[in-house]
Amino acid sequence: MISQKMLKLGQQSSVIRAISEYGNKRKKEIGAENVYDFSLGNPSIPAPEVIGDTLKELLDTMPPCALHGYTSSAGSMEAREAIAAHIRARFGAPADGAHIYMTCGAAASLTISLHALLNEGEEVVVPAPFFPEYRVFVEKAGGKLVPVPCHQPSFQLNLEAMAEAITEKTKVVLLNSPNNPTGAVYTRESLEALAELLKKKEGEYGTEIFLLTDEPYRELYYGEGLLPWLPSVYDRTVVGYSYSKSLSLPGERIGYIFVSPTCPDAELVFAAVCGAGRSLGFVCAPSMWQHLVTRVQGVTSDVEEYRGNMQILAGALSEMGYVVTPPEGAFYLFVKALEEDAAAFCERAKKYELLLVPSDSFGVPGFVRIAYCVSRETIEKSLPAFRKLMEEYKK
Amino acid sequence: MISQKMLKLGQQSSVIRAISEYGNKRKKEIGAENVYDFSLGNPSIPAPEVIGDTLKELLDTMPPCALHGYTSSAGSMEAREAIAAHIRARFGAPADGAHIYMTCGAAASLTISLHALLNEGEEVVVPAPFFPEYRVFVEKAGGKLVPVPCHQPSFQLNLEAMAEAITEKTKVVLLNSPNNPTGAVYTRESLEALAELLKKKEGEYGTEIFLLTDEPYRELYYGEGLLPWLPSVYDRTVVGYSYSKSLSLPGERIGYIFVSPTCPDAELVFAAVCGAGRSLGFVCAPSMWQHLVTRVQGVTSDVEEYRGNMQILAGALSEMGYVVTPPEGAFYLFVKALEEDAAAFCERAKKYELLLVPSDSFGVPGFVRIAYCVSRETIEKSLPAFRKLMEEYKK
Repeated sequence: MISQKMLKLGQQSSVIRAISEYGNKRKKEIGAENVYDFSLGNPSIPAPEVIGDTLKELLDTMPPCALHGYTSSAGSMEAREAIAAHIRARFGAPADGAHIYMTCGAAASLTISLHALLNEGEEVVVPAPFFPEYRVFVEKAGGKLVPVPCHQPSFQLNLEAMAEAITEKTKVVLLNSPNNPTGAVYTRESLEALAELLKKKEGEYGTEIFLLTDEPYRELYYGEGLLPWLPSVYDRTVVGYSYSKSLSLPGERIGYIFVSPTCPDAELVFAAVCGAGRSLGFVCAPSMWQHLVTRVQGVTSDVEEYRGNMQILAGALSEMGYVVTPPEGAFYLFVKALEEDAAAFCERAKKYELLLVPSDSFGVPGFVRIAYCVSRETIEKSLPAFRKLMEEYKK
Repeated sequence: MISQKMLKLGQQSSVIRAISEYGNKRKKEIGAENVYDFSLGNPSIPAPEVIGDTLKELLDTMPPCALHGYTSSAGSMEAREAIAAHIRARFGAPADGAHIYMTCGAAASLTISLHALLNEGEEVVVPAPFFPEYRVFVEKAGGKLVPVPCHQPSFQLNLEAMAEAITEKTKVVLLNSPNNPTGAVYTRESLEALAELLKKKEGEYGTEIFLLTDEPYRELYYGEGLLPWLPSVYDRTVVGYSYSKSLSLPGERIGYIFVSPTCPDAELVFAAVCGAGRSLGFVCAPSMWQHLVTRVQGVTSDVEEYRGNMQILAGALSEMGYVVTPPEGAFYLFVKALEEDAAAFCERAKKYELLLVPSDSFGVPGFVRIAYCVSRETIEKSLPAFRKLMEEYKK
């Protein structure tokens, strides 16, 4: 008898993956241009040219044994110092390479941090909706996920509900802003209020509560100025970052964990991160990609493309009568389904070759997620299909 | 209170890493050319030129979104089919892409396989000496490591001792041949006898026992012909492979898990592998490296360099009076320490700037591991130091 838990996780592939696989099959049947596949958060904008150029330069100039060799398990100190310098310059916040641990992307940043922080049975409070794999990661680390619904239709933090959900068992509050799947960006005021709440609860229970932030969408922000840097708002913060979306490198698996130097016992937290990475089998983050990010701090893909997609789609859908909360970041539109059962709605959308993801596995019923990281052509060609879908419900 | 287990793992870095860090410090003090650092298994031979050339070709010809995009979580089917074709051609054994799962290197191959196979408290029998991280990986997956000493000085399997160690709790036998740290290659006869033993024990206990093979050193073999392909010897076999040593890409983290199609319930085992990879946070293996290995099946670094190092070092040490078992593969020499306490011996070796790893953490006392994946110059310059060390003990 092999591990039945792992078997179950392997057999029940995620809803998102299942729809994406249906999409691939359907594209083969009727041609890719006739399927409006909004299922996957796979960046549609190519990596900036400087990425390929820098990789070639690395191949031409670095000795192969240095370029492809092991780095220390926390990563190349050169990469970690470059990231720290970028954080200091951008956020005016303390940062040093000694508190940065290079990872194989955002998922690894989360699983390693969760294994480092959690003891069996401790709780992780997460605003809902949330990325469904959070549940898998938290449970594997021995924790219990506690979703707390956000306000609707803004999808901003509901602090009263969070105050109720935070108990003496709460070890981590997991935030993802800009948010997958809603595109909401939590306001500075709400984050500061959350920090106050956490400090109060820590005092009340005599516990430690960590803020763990999942930030693959940090650079995909459509508003003015900078998003708040959470370690400047709350000391006990661990940031999980990934270059997957900002540099359009999702398959390459490169990111980092930043333990705020202002976090009490930061050195111990960092050591536990190193221990967790080691025990899960992450020897080091891919070395050539570490050398690459050392050289391209501050570079991002051209996110204006996504903004354009969003404006066209959100505008047209609203006009047709869909209830849309305009996203402030990421590349997802979260739209109210036209019937209570979002999965049934997605099934009907398939008739028009529209592939949408029902919101249930994100922890909120009655919505669909539309990943608009697709070509402009797909956006434009999909509009008549959305119109027909609406008409069907109006009948 | 963060996870004390992870903290402990992070604070007690491996003995190998600690010696390597001392070496880096010492090199800064007295010059790299004056330190004979035999601590790390970091390949000294550069990746073959075709690696850099193929990467540049991929960058020039593949659209960035395809090159750097997510693959399916088990990996690009093109890569998996290329690997399967290579296995079929090389070993005349059944193989197909559907049973291959691309991983972030050997450590990931092991942690994912162990999480897929083990239930809490089940035992993993491993011939000793063994790579020390095995204990970390097995315990994290909920299992218990059961080391079984090999015959000395051949370091071949002791089948009688293994027969005694295999109980109804045994779920996995973990093999590593060519072996780290001894360089021993288990004979075909002993592997066939082991397969018979496992079948007998399965019958006796009504259990399933998996053979899990850790094969990063498969291509580093100094003998004639091919090493036995374990899935052809024993049905219930899962192979963990890595390109780290064979292509000198240890930092890039690329390898695979092969579930033998002859394994009963191979589909279920494969699904559990997928579930384990998902829950540990491995989204997919680095995509560009997957596209790379698709194109270079059968290519290896020039391992003759290692053979040359081994012959010079093993020859000279034997002549000086050290007890050396000539290795048949990998790039390690396992040498009897000149006093009972291997750690004390390594401390004395440091006086002559010789950095050796004591065998205790490999599960066997009284030896040292010498990683001879260093420059020929280091090998040659180190010989007088080894001689002085011997002379000190003869006094």
